[in-house]
Amino acid sequence: MSGEGEGKGAKGAAQRRKLGKVDIPTVTMAHGGGGKAMHDFIDDLFVDAFYNEPLAPLEDQARFSIDALARYGDRLAFTTDSYVVSPLEFPGGDIGKLAICGTVNDLAVGGATPLYLSCAVIVEEGVSVDLMRKVARSMAATAVEAGVEVVTGDTKVVERGACDKLFINTAGIGVIRAGVKLGVELAQPDDLVIVNGVLGDHGATILNARGDMKLDTEIFSDCAPLHGLIGALLEAAPNTRFIRDATRGGLATVLNEIARGSEVGIEIREGQIPIRAVVRGFCELLGLDPLYLANEGKIVCVVAKDEAEAALAALRAHPYGKDSVAIGHVTDERPGRVVMTTVLGGRRIVDTLVGEQLPRIC
Amino acid sequence: MSGEGEGKGAKGAAQRRKLGKVDIPTVTMAHGGGGKAMHDFIDDLFVDAFYNEPLAPLEDQARFSIDALARYGDRLAFTTDSYVVSPLEFPGGDIGKLAICGTVNDLAVGGATPLYLSCAVIVEEGVSVDLMRKVARSMAATAVEAGVEVVTGDTKVVERGACDKLFINTAGIGVIRAGVKLGVELAQPDDLVIVNGVLGDHGATILNARGDMKLDTEIFSDCAPLHGLIGALLEAAPNTRFIRDATRGGLATVLNEIARGSEVGIEIREGQIPIRAVVRGFCELLGLDPLYLANEGKIVCVVAKDEAEAALAALRAHPYGKDSVAIGHVTDERPGRVVMTTVLGGRRIVDTLVGEQLPRIC
Repeated sequence: MSGEGEGKGAKGAAQRRKLGKVDIPTVTMAHGGGGKAMHDFIDDLFVDAFYNEPLAPLEDQARFSIDALARYGDRLAFTTDSYVVSPLEFPGGDIGKLAICGTVNDLAVGGATPLYLSCAVIVEEGVSVDLMRKVARSMAATAVEAGVEVVTGDTKVVERGACDKLFINTAGIGVIRAGVKLGVELAQPDDLVIVNGVLGDHGATILNARGDMKLDTEIFSDCAPLHGLIGALLEAAPNTRFIRDATRGGLATVLNEIARGSEVGIEIREGQIPIRAVVRGFCELLGLDPLYLANEGKIVCVVAKDEAEAALAALRAHPYGKDSVAIGHVTDERPGRVVMTTVLGGRRIVDTLVGEQLPRIC
Repeated sequence: MSGEGEGKGAKGAAQRRKLGKVDIPTVTMAHGGGGKAMHDFIDDLFVDAFYNEPLAPLEDQARFSIDALARYGDRLAFTTDSYVVSPLEFPGGDIGKLAICGTVNDLAVGGATPLYLSCAVIVEEGVSVDLMRKVARSMAATAVEAGVEVVTGDTKVVERGACDKLFINTAGIGVIRAGVKLGVELAQPDDLVIVNGVLGDHGATILNARGDMKLDTEIFSDCAPLHGLIGALLEAAPNTRFIRDATRGGLATVLNEIARGSEVGIEIREGQIPIRAVVRGFCELLGLDPLYLANEGKIVCVVAKDEAEAALAALRAHPYGKDSVAIGHVTDERPGRVVMTTVLGGRRIVDTLVGEQLPRIC
């Protein structure tokens, strides 16, 4: 497609190290029109930020050796996500950081080493070029932290009102570590359920950033690339059954997916679930259940009982896992059900959401 | 990300062959909310249409063997494009067919065999579920023709007014045939420039479908997957220098990319360029230059002079290439310039677009 075409043209310019510059303050239709204005736009914002080898100067696709991939494992992992978060910037991150972390984490939870990402933006005429540049640099910085390269891209500009400012899609390619066997159907009775820290920060942060209420204490999104943490976990607990990032739908949704996928029951203890007081209070005020709040830097792990200690130690030794804790266990009772023992000693079923909770949280 | 999460949940359901159904006529926020409504939505529309093996039931990523890839060649090709075409349906295709063909062609022009695609949709609350289903089936049918599998996906629903109905992103993975060496920098003097048929049909069709003018004769988009045609070309003319699909920006843009990329001159003859009378008339009425009109089923090929006959024969033997013709040649004069000899014998420079031509053509 031509978007790619322009991308590649710009990449060629990049290789020759003569990047075009955007000299006006807002995005115009011309920046998506396929001409010089678009070359310069892509040069200035994306090629400048992302430039790397497989970017395949002047070509329609990124290209890389299959042998190089085979060094990481024997199976390829491929995933995609679009990011439509509103607002675009929030405490702890922005749509660019989210677009890298989300896709890196989707690869990592499958036991894959994330390697290559694509970046396709749909931007509304009139958006600030400085904002776009900021988002592109945020993506580039996060990609560096995550050890991935953004190797191909596309830019589309739509007229005012045809989209809400900026949407980003990233697709990702990773290689699954040899021998790793993870699956939502692999949970077994007595396995422990572990989370790597406090829950709900991202969801609460986005809602708060929308001004739905004023909080004295600021909350920050937990948005982070978790492939390093997951690598450490898989080293320490090679029989780990399943890992999933608890994004939209939150902890409750992931636990229900495990209960259904493995046809097991899951027992969790409310008192064990780490949630910041400020997030808990926020949820009480808005009538939200923190178990369903989105996270962008939290995983739910199902680990074998005899590897649980090693798993917790490995997770806690990592900056993104220092507050890791076992919140419950897998049981053969009530297959398909997630049951929580409350702090008051009561028991309630934690069900799947039927409808929506929070739109445009990611 | 959770969209993936829901996707995967739905895929699990699919594997168990118990797909949920959407029982209301329009898309609601609940269809993007992460709960049962979204599972059913994805089941009904996408899993039902796309179901295949690597879809990785219940997981966050599609997974496939690297050895299987290596059977096709030694280099992976990776590309992405977002599709924002307006209107969503037009004579000869729709956004779904476009989203498969565009990405398949971006892989194919690099000499790759397209294999796996992702599909990420951003849909506006209120869009007809029947339309979504129709688009999904169009994607699935085109994927079958193209011999690719849609193996992973994401669905985001945004509130009314936050996007114009429906945007689709597809990323694609293919494997580049061993030995194939194509590059925009490889054109040499005396090479011939070939196109595989009439130009401008897609661009004219979209404009016409927008009702910008009434035409007696209907025009149809040329939208088509070209990997088969390109495979035949590379068999017949193994020294082919470069292939590119002439999408947004049209023939003129591709020729200028070649002239710049290879630092050569390109001479074309207006009389040789195949354009339907109806498209030519359409352009005259709207003051458009058909050389810049978008195509979705046309490629520009630079072939070695001694392989040109074989190339033309191979292209013409394929349903998508029967009107293939040489429109000009590469020269060492005026490097970086594209010069056209007009039907009246005059000569003019065919330059790159500076700004926009037509928004949302793909």
